[in-house]
Amino acid sequence: MRSLGKKETAEKKGILYGVGTGPGDPELMTLKAVRILKECDMLLLPAGKKEDCRAYRIAAAAVPEIKDKPFIGFEIPMTRDEEIRNKAFRRIHGEISGYLMERKTLAFLTIGDPAVYSTFCYLADEAKRAGDEVRMISGITSFSACSARAVQPLAEGPQEIHIIPSESDYDEALKLPGTKVFMKAGGRLKELKEKLTALPEGSVRISAVENCGMENERVYEAVKELPEEKTYMIVVSVAENR
Amino acid sequence: MRSLGKKETAEKKGILYGVGTGPGDPELMTLKAVRILKECDMLLLPAGKKEDCRAYRIAAAAVPEIKDKPFIGFEIPMTRDEEIRNKAFRRIHGEISGYLMERKTLAFLTIGDPAVYSTFCYLADEAKRAGDEVRMISGITSFSACSARAVQPLAEGPQEIHIIPSESDYDEALKLPGTKVFMKAGGRLKELKEKLTALPEGSVRISAVENCGMENERVYEAVKELPEEKTYMIVVSVAENR
Repeated sequence: MRSLGKKETAEKKGILYGVGTGPGDPELMTLKAVRILKECDMLLLPAGKKEDCRAYRIAAAAVPEIKDKPFIGFEIPMTRDEEIRNKAFRRIHGEISGYLMERKTLAFLTIGDPAVYSTFCYLADEAKRAGDEVRMISGITSFSACSARAVQPLAEGPQEIHIIPSESDYDEALKLPGTKVFMKAGGRLKELKEKLTALPEGSVRISAVENCGMENERVYEAVKELPEEKTYMIVVSVAENR
Repeated sequence: MRSLGKKETAEKKGILYGVGTGPGDPELMTLKAVRILKECDMLLLPAGKKEDCRAYRIAAAAVPEIKDKPFIGFEIPMTRDEEIRNKAFRRIHGEISGYLMERKTLAFLTIGDPAVYSTFCYLADEAKRAGDEVRMISGITSFSACSARAVQPLAEGPQEIHIIPSESDYDEALKLPGTKVFMKAGGRLKELKEKLTALPEGSVRISAVENCGMENERVYEAVKELPEEKTYMIVVSVAENR
């Protein structure tokens, strides 16, 4: 039987945290995220430079102390090619595993929620496979924040909610009951707008928020208002009209 | 043209906030929720008594100052009968509209997120109809927190997420691609477990969390572990196995 207490703690490796910063407004960070960022030994950023890292900018606005913490910035390949991606995250894990062996606490920043379409998931997979301790600190998702911004519920009572990424078949998605949330729809806005325009008049109620929580935030509450040009940070929520 | 500044402010009515406390762990409250609760004039609780109000207990653990704030507790009818419900919320709105006329800031507490299956939505509807200023402060949803607790992503890359309330057809839901999150499944656990057991072996990966963030929290990571007896606060997440 192993003795517990100090020795047990001393034998443990460090902890890899995935910390959600929420979608943009620094005040949407949780108390737990703030505490973990204050306590951690090192930050891991999903961008080569601090200035290019949106999650870092949000976190630093809420927790200025992190500006003095050591950090590593990782260039993360934006690819669906699993082999390239896995290789990149094996390399990233290789870079951090020494710190975990030294029992450091590392906080990988992600915008939104680390459980929802986050690159942290891939690093977490590698770390879990290696037997590291991995924890996730939830963040406010973009779709929650956009719903709050538009003061429109995502769902009430018996309604379903469907979160649809940009790779999905939009025709199939629009047939689903309840609320459909089109994430990162920025590259397919023209197509989505056409499909929404073709629906029976008054059958849906939309709310869309671009750059939610940022200075250049815009809210749209009618299909005809929706922009058509490509834009990165937009969430379009399509609810059944009651 | 109306003059802006002081006069404008003085003419305005108060603000009705729906404040999400997150699912249970007080540290999952956002900085914004904490600030609004500190600043507000009065709390509105979705339960007759403070002690019976889970959202209040969460909020008071994070913001002890609220214990000294005036509050009104509302018995909210748990019904799907729209007429009964609308009548109840018209009455509740009637009780608070005097305070809004007096330019008070009111904070209605909800567990989780006020945009996701919250009773606040019904009060917000009444208030918006009456021309009141209504704002929503996002909270961490139970499905985000459960995913974090199980250290399993809800979705990666091109996967869809489907949030399925207890009124839905589970057979239809299980046919959907991506991750299915069964909310408030506590009354249909036996049925859900049977359906999950009948799926081809190894086709799905489940994680379920009961009483997430509470002292009596339990995490389940296999279908056969799932409890069958009725339980209130459980979220069952069913992901496609990769």
